Amino acid sequence: MKRIRLILIGVGNLGRRFCALLLEKGTLLRTRYDLEFTLVGAADSRGAACDPRGLDLADIVRVKESGGSVADCASRRPGLDALALLDAVPADVLLEASPVNLAQGAEPGLSCVRAALRRGMHVVTPNKGPLVLAYRELHALAREHGVLLRFDGAVAGGLPAINLGARDLRGAVVERLEAVPNLVTGYVMDLLAEGVPWDDALARAYTEGVLEGDGVWDLEGWDAAAKLVILANAVMDYPATLEMVTRTGIVGLDIHKLSAAHARGERYRVVASALRQPNRTYTLSAAPRPLPADHPFGRLGRKEMAVRYTTDIYGTITAIIEEPDPIPSSATMLRDLLDIYG
Amino acid sequence: MKRIRLILIGVGNLGRRFCALLLEKGTLLRTRYDLEFTLVGAADSRGAACDPRGLDLADIVRVKESGGSVADCASRRPGLDALALLDAVPADVLLEASPVNLAQGAEPGLSCVRAALRRGMHVVTPNKGPLVLAYRELHALAREHGVLLRFDGAVAGGLPAINLGARDLRGAVVERLEAVPNLVTGYVMDLLAEGVPWDDALARAYTEGVLEGDGVWDLEGWDAAAKLVILANAVMDYPATLEMVTRTGIVGLDIHKLSAAHARGERYRVVASALRQPNRTYTLSAAPRPLPADHPFGRLGRKEMAVRYTTDIYGTITAIIEEPDPIPSSATMLRDLLDIYG
Repeated sequence: MKRIRLILIGVGNLGRRFCALLLEKGTLLRTRYDLEFTLVGAADSRGAACDPRGLDLADIVRVKESGGSVADCASRRPGLDALALLDAVPADVLLEASPVNLAQGAEPGLSCVRAALRRGMHVVTPNKGPLVLAYRELHALAREHGVLLRFDGAVAGGLPAINLGARDLRGAVVERLEAVPNLVTGYVMDLLAEGVPWDDALARAYTEGVLEGDGVWDLEGWDAAAKLVILANAVMDYPATLEMVTRTGIVGLDIHKLSAAHARGERYRVVASALRQPNRTYTLSAAPRPLPADHPFGRLGRKEMAVRYTTDIYGTITAIIEEPDPIPSSATMLRDLLDIYG
Repeated sequence: MKRIRLILIGVGNLGRRFCALLLEKGTLLRTRYDLEFTLVGAADSRGAACDPRGLDLADIVRVKESGGSVADCASRRPGLDALALLDAVPADVLLEASPVNLAQGAEPGLSCVRAALRRGMHVVTPNKGPLVLAYRELHALAREHGVLLRFDGAVAGGLPAINLGARDLRGAVVERLEAVPNLVTGYVMDLLAEGVPWDDALARAYTEGVLEGDGVWDLEGWDAAAKLVILANAVMDYPATLEMVTRTGIVGLDIHKLSAAHARGERYRVVASALRQPNRTYTLSAAPRPLPADHPFGRLGRKEMAVRYTTDIYGTITAIIEEPDPIPSSATMLRDLLDIYG
């Protein structure tokens, strides 16, 4: 039995569900893979907890589900923040699951990821912020320290869009990449097309837990653009940045066009795409597009995301996930861990 | 630069295209992955060729495209057969790409795979025969000798159906697996539904290169059943055998039902499925089924194959490949090689 010590930073929607998953899957992981994952530290925006013998996962799940902080858990360590947690307890892997926070330079996530890699820890992160701002630097840092940086959850929730591209398309040239990597915009546009007013559509998205924060990240297309940047770097080894993406959000979208498309049986989705040019660069864009029913993305439901790779030697491969709740997104951290150790 | 010596057994549709691919991708493989693949031996049903310094790939492609044998190539070794080739030249990987041949106990493929694993060679094979007859044995043999057995091309052509299941669903319970892993049956049923008589439909499938041999393997559902057995073993670690699959082919299918479904906008496909039962076994079947347009497989074209996994923690993931020619199927050997060395 191999024991793997984890530190989790960010115990929100994904982090909390990951703790519940680890609790639920403990026996299966021990028997099927001979692995024992122990959470030795956890931090959220309000504080931290740590215990080298392992935190009480049930305690964390309970406290977080009732709106508390890990700073309220039995193993709390007053005064400790996320970065200091890495010094406080030795661990093998950092799970960085903070929410995206580009406005603040993706901090403290970015500093934590850097610090963990420098310490020789593997890093698993579904957080797009550090990847978008510093993909190349973090990649080089991981190689320099002989550790792995995994982030399959950063794009399209639980769909292994990155794994599929980066591993299964090895040796190929990707001529075209298209993705519907964002749920919120599709959800809202479907409601708008049905005649629901903008404010009501947003309110329903908040109630459903699809939309969070001020909504700008999703509604103005930043989320889709960021995911495209990560895909282009990870799959095509193309040094894409956010500035290179022609980005159109869904704010101010023409409702009449939307309704007319809906009436024709078409569905609007924000499609992120990378098209290879004769000079081997890629043209990157993320914008709402009407998709006819016979388009590979034309029948995506409100809880579905997709990616499509057109390649020179592996044909055209489309992958779609139906994700009724955020569990698959949180499970990507388990997928990445088992990719490292399984 | 790492040099990897390959032996290829079976230089038909897939093997020949793999040689052409290696020729075409040589520079990319050297620059992108620092890998130099050298084909040191090749055998088909009529003979063998070998050269420790590397065979002339262009020569092999030319000879095979004009209907010849590797025994006609410059580096031919008269009297040498596939199994003896493994003794004649040292190599790191066996690529076993013979056609499926269950009637003869999957020989000589099965013996070659066994011999290569025992020698400490990795094995890459899109040949379903040895896997269906001896999955557990070969798996154990590979582990015993510390080498890898890869066979992503054995199911659904160039679609990474096995990789997706075996790697990206780690930690999950697969509740339901459904696949359309066979092209021929869909192709023939689409023609039948359009009113083309059975013999003409088969003739067109032969002309198109979709159907080969006497057709029994495909038309009686053996191919879909074999692929299901491999998926169940590789993805769910379920000890499935061909005998456990309830198999229905498309011979004798009711043409009126087919045409009526076609008129309703439904499409027939042979669907292979594994359904998890409360006692943790799987019910396995492969049979033609009418699929309505809104079914995830309902719009598959004649050159498309698909797989769908319904899981406990990764949602429901569907993957589809559009494969206009057999290049993606042959490229799976490159995918597997780069999975081993990349």
